[in-house]
Amino acid sequence: MREKITVVKVGGAIVEDAAALGQLLDAFRTIPGRKVLVHGGGRRATAVAARLGLETRMVGGRRVTDADMLEVVTMVYAGLVNKNIVARLQALGLNALGMTGADGGILLARRRPVSGGVDYGYVGDVERADGRALAAVIEGVGIPVIAPLTHDGHGQLLNTNADTMASAVACALAGRYDVTLVYTFEKRGVLRDPADEESVIPVITHADFDRLTADGTISRGMIPKVDNALRAIDSGVTRVVITQAAAIGTQAGTVIRK
Amino acid sequence: MREKITVVKVGGAIVEDAAALGQLLDAFRTIPGRKVLVHGGGRRATAVAARLGLETRMVGGRRVTDADMLEVVTMVYAGLVNKNIVARLQALGLNALGMTGADGGILLARRRPVSGGVDYGYVGDVERADGRALAAVIEGVGIPVIAPLTHDGHGQLLNTNADTMASAVACALAGRYDVTLVYTFEKRGVLRDPADEESVIPVITHADFDRLTADGTISRGMIPKVDNALRAIDSGVTRVVITQAAAIGTQAGTVIRK
Repeated sequence: MREKITVVKVGGAIVEDAAALGQLLDAFRTIPGRKVLVHGGGRRATAVAARLGLETRMVGGRRVTDADMLEVVTMVYAGLVNKNIVARLQALGLNALGMTGADGGILLARRRPVSGGVDYGYVGDVERADGRALAAVIEGVGIPVIAPLTHDGHGQLLNTNADTMASAVACALAGRYDVTLVYTFEKRGVLRDPADEESVIPVITHADFDRLTADGTISRGMIPKVDNALRAIDSGVTRVVITQAAAIGTQAGTVIRK
Repeated sequence: MREKITVVKVGGAIVEDAAALGQLLDAFRTIPGRKVLVHGGGRRATAVAARLGLETRMVGGRRVTDADMLEVVTMVYAGLVNKNIVARLQALGLNALGMTGADGGILLARRRPVSGGVDYGYVGDVERADGRALAAVIEGVGIPVIAPLTHDGHGQLLNTNADTMASAVACALAGRYDVTLVYTFEKRGVLRDPADEESVIPVITHADFDRLTADGTISRGMIPKVDNALRAIDSGVTRVVITQAAAIGTQAGTVIRK
């Protein structure tokens, strides 16, 4: 039987709020067994960029990353945010080790090509995840804490979506471990009624997804989220949980499984 | 017989200069066997601090690190400098993994107490080095690339001297490996005549050191450097080499040994 491991993705808004981050790390600590934390970047980079006199340009909700902005996100995500999480986990007695996709060559990406006249700049789409270095860190050290940057194998760092990175990491580990991927989210899970926080759908399978999208229960932004989760399941991840950050140590939320 | 490993310390001036860094990494690549790179921080942090409207205050040649400056050095050393070195080593086919002293709990430090009315702020003096996580990274991944920051075990990051960190890392590995510690330096080695670059002293032992300090050949700033090197030797490091960055792959420079 493969050993259990939990990969938790937390968003940028939480890692920027010292109190919320503290709650999250306390909850993270209670997850039994091996674990990995993947964190987002968020608005802290925008604030640092503004102080450096750089303008943040967003296209379709995504940050355009020119050379100067890449320096900022490298500083903020891999430096400030990542190392503060590592130091706080160490204080909780967890042997954390911060990484980007470049470290240990865990996530190789390709710079996103210009499309429809939009150049996102130094933004990478994950091409290949390598579980070997990750497993060595997990077995030999403890808890990888992963910042949302990758590299292209030719010396170029690339700004990369943290949700995608979490999914790639979970899939890369699926050959060695029984993997649960937890996406933290502002809601308690996938809701049957968006206005009712109590209406969390406990389990969604492929068949449920088809039915729930057909009848309109799952709509808009939730469709790609659940679709991504199902793709992780198809790649060998045992279960994906969509839940609130504070609930990661519990059984709450929506479970996506085969 | 213990396996050989080389720990190389490079200063901030080199890591800030893209061409010099390229030469250094090419030379680093030619070092046979296992290796570790420890890098300094340097003036890049001063430049970023200035752009953020922060004043850099130095006391006795050392940076005073208040809370804002700690954020800057964390961003620049652990983010910008460290991850660019990692991505460039990956491009050379070396499986590098960036770390600070907090990552894997490799270097625990204590905040330097206020002394003589001088408060250096968030500056740490290394208290304990742990070779286990380092060895796991070396054996399971490849090359640790270490940025000059540590932690206090209570969640606080600390700005730390890179020379000291390199020495602590070398000593922590001495139980497992046959360690060579290479300090890169602006000169070709310890010179018999400071005005003559050709007068490199090839070997210095404890007995030589006593003689060379007594007769004034080794003086001023070179005394603590060689003294530190001899202390590393006394802690189990096999040899310490003081040489130029471009010469790290060769046998050039001054060797300090028992």
